[in-house]
Amino acid sequence: MEYTFSNKMAALKPSAIREIFKSLTDPTIISFAAGNPAPESFPVEALSAISADIFANTASFALQYGITDGYGPLREAVAARQKERFGIGREFDTTLITTGGQQGIELCCKVLCNEGDTVLCENPSFIGALNAFRSLGAKPVGIPLRTEGGIDPDALEAAIAANPRAKMLYLIPTFQNPAGSTTDTATRRRIYDICRRHSLIILEDNPYGELRFAGEDIPTIKSMDEDGIVVYCSSFSKILSAGMRVGFVVAPEAIVQKMVVAKQVEDVHTNLFFQMLCHRYITEYDLDAHIAGIRALYGRKCRLMLDTLDEYMPKSITYTRPEGGLFIWCTLPDSVDVSDFIKRCLAEKVAVVPGSAFNPEENAPLQAFRLNYSTPSDEQIVEGVKRLAKVAREML
Amino acid sequence: MEYTFSNKMAALKPSAIREIFKSLTDPTIISFAAGNPAPESFPVEALSAISADIFANTASFALQYGITDGYGPLREAVAARQKERFGIGREFDTTLITTGGQQGIELCCKVLCNEGDTVLCENPSFIGALNAFRSLGAKPVGIPLRTEGGIDPDALEAAIAANPRAKMLYLIPTFQNPAGSTTDTATRRRIYDICRRHSLIILEDNPYGELRFAGEDIPTIKSMDEDGIVVYCSSFSKILSAGMRVGFVVAPEAIVQKMVVAKQVEDVHTNLFFQMLCHRYITEYDLDAHIAGIRALYGRKCRLMLDTLDEYMPKSITYTRPEGGLFIWCTLPDSVDVSDFIKRCLAEKVAVVPGSAFNPEENAPLQAFRLNYSTPSDEQIVEGVKRLAKVAREML
Repeated sequence: MEYTFSNKMAALKPSAIREIFKSLTDPTIISFAAGNPAPESFPVEALSAISADIFANTASFALQYGITDGYGPLREAVAARQKERFGIGREFDTTLITTGGQQGIELCCKVLCNEGDTVLCENPSFIGALNAFRSLGAKPVGIPLRTEGGIDPDALEAAIAANPRAKMLYLIPTFQNPAGSTTDTATRRRIYDICRRHSLIILEDNPYGELRFAGEDIPTIKSMDEDGIVVYCSSFSKILSAGMRVGFVVAPEAIVQKMVVAKQVEDVHTNLFFQMLCHRYITEYDLDAHIAGIRALYGRKCRLMLDTLDEYMPKSITYTRPEGGLFIWCTLPDSVDVSDFIKRCLAEKVAVVPGSAFNPEENAPLQAFRLNYSTPSDEQIVEGVKRLAKVAREML
Repeated sequence: MEYTFSNKMAALKPSAIREIFKSLTDPTIISFAAGNPAPESFPVEALSAISADIFANTASFALQYGITDGYGPLREAVAARQKERFGIGREFDTTLITTGGQQGIELCCKVLCNEGDTVLCENPSFIGALNAFRSLGAKPVGIPLRTEGGIDPDALEAAIAANPRAKMLYLIPTFQNPAGSTTDTATRRRIYDICRRHSLIILEDNPYGELRFAGEDIPTIKSMDEDGIVVYCSSFSKILSAGMRVGFVVAPEAIVQKMVVAKQVEDVHTNLFFQMLCHRYITEYDLDAHIAGIRALYGRKCRLMLDTLDEYMPKSITYTRPEGGLFIWCTLPDSVDVSDFIKRCLAEKVAVVPGSAFNPEENAPLQAFRLNYSTPSDEQIVEGVKRLAKVAREML
């Protein structure tokens, strides 16, 4: 039997990262390729205690169908925390619980974009978002991400002019994936003003916002949203558990209402038991103290990776110096072929993700690769970076 | 701010059932409107014990990102059970874990249908599926479901001829939602042969297949699938927990591969903790004994509802006599206005779902309503049916 697939799905390939993740069954490989949080970031004992209590006292509610919008007390707890922590949420906004942050991205595109529409985004950008746009027949168009300060607002103006079918701008302004860099406040304001003038919806993806380990907090774009043009999405994946798939959206009610209808036909609602678990953890435990521990851990691991890069990597290879999040972005000199570099690193048993995976223009090269420091051990960070540096020296 | 939504989502309304479900906060209303399993169908003690064990021994795996295809041991356990129980799965098939059965339906349509394509289905049909098709810009076209025997194969031939853009046929052949009726074996074979001749994919939705309480097992259409044209989806919602959102698809590998790519951008993967919970329950506990208990319960409740209908309902109102599942479908004589009937029932504090909600042709009437017997208590079944009968007598 020959199958004919929909146009939007026919060309879509599995995410290179997920494929790399699947192939990392060889325990002798040092992987800097994942985007996984450290296991230390899961408050296992607390979640276990709450879970036992839910089974003992509210099991038939927790195991029954829930409403699509999400578990009411969790929606309230999320709204309160986002307001307090990030200045997010005005009278026209409401909160939706999603099956991970990924679902918020996909739903936003689904309700706003027709096939053939354009989604403007940073180049490089998060592959899960790029593929979500593609899976809906929308076309991601990248705006170069500068080494510092995010995208150039003038380049955004130009991209809007050049793409009349642009329906939204997708940004990860804080501890960007894959670049690790952060857009400064002034640039955020300029981006917001430009989008407001053009009635362009901003999808602000902030999965790493809680993970700052250096520098000063920068206001979210959503906190500037007087006009109701920002859809904000985030999740508990990096602070409580990635595998439970609980995320959320804060956005103008009219948009959320459409997202609820779209979510209803995707999965009816998000796992209710874990929604209750999240609610209980947020309201009964010290989430800030828990997050402080994760920040300290990642800050230490990031410094170790940067120190090792500084010591061993040839100076012609540059990299970002993140103030939070999970990733460092390394740029290779033009003389080095990236895919060749990646292959030779794999032969040395170190896995990294090629920049091309994050290029909104599919299959186009990017002279860079992504490093993750949250998953490997300290020993693996030092040994792995040494091996990367060895390959780099050989290829220069 | 005025928002412009995608064409496919602009017209889509929230499911009438989910809206009714949300409005059922009045505890004095007897609800026959839900599609919820009885709380007795959740094996709380066993799930609680397994959960404690997962937290104690494999928490950092269970709370971490997993692979999109699903937890390997669960995929194997599902494949083995479907093979043994329903004769499902050939060498070309594979298994995908989905976030509830709903996601399997949506993903299948997403990978097969372009906007403007047609999905043939029974009329009436499951509203969650109809809205999933609509949310992707596909058009559901109904084929009348006969009181017995499912759709007429000749009508299917005619529908295929009349709809050159038909990409798939969506069926709930066993204990249909909302009709409660089952397609007989001979009709299944004729439907399969017609679809094979026209290379039309069949999406066989079987969420209630385990819930037979009368009559003899009938082979699934998937068990006849020598040609790889059937995508089979089901879930654990009606036998372990609806709120956990764990379902599965068994389908030809080429189709599943595309569904995996589509799922990756929707939610990355299904809640891993509950996938592990399902696997442990299936392999370590007596699932068949547990299901036997649910069957006995629903058989008793269905008989009680039918007996009460037989006793009190005017003879001009007809209804199906299900051999399993959750629903009875009542047809009103043409003289009775259905929406008026529903309103008057609500005034008498009984909620049922109007037939129109299940009509593939949106907003078109259907001279019927759906009753659920899994959720109400015995007392509520008797009292609620008496009230329905009273309204019916008044309106005749």
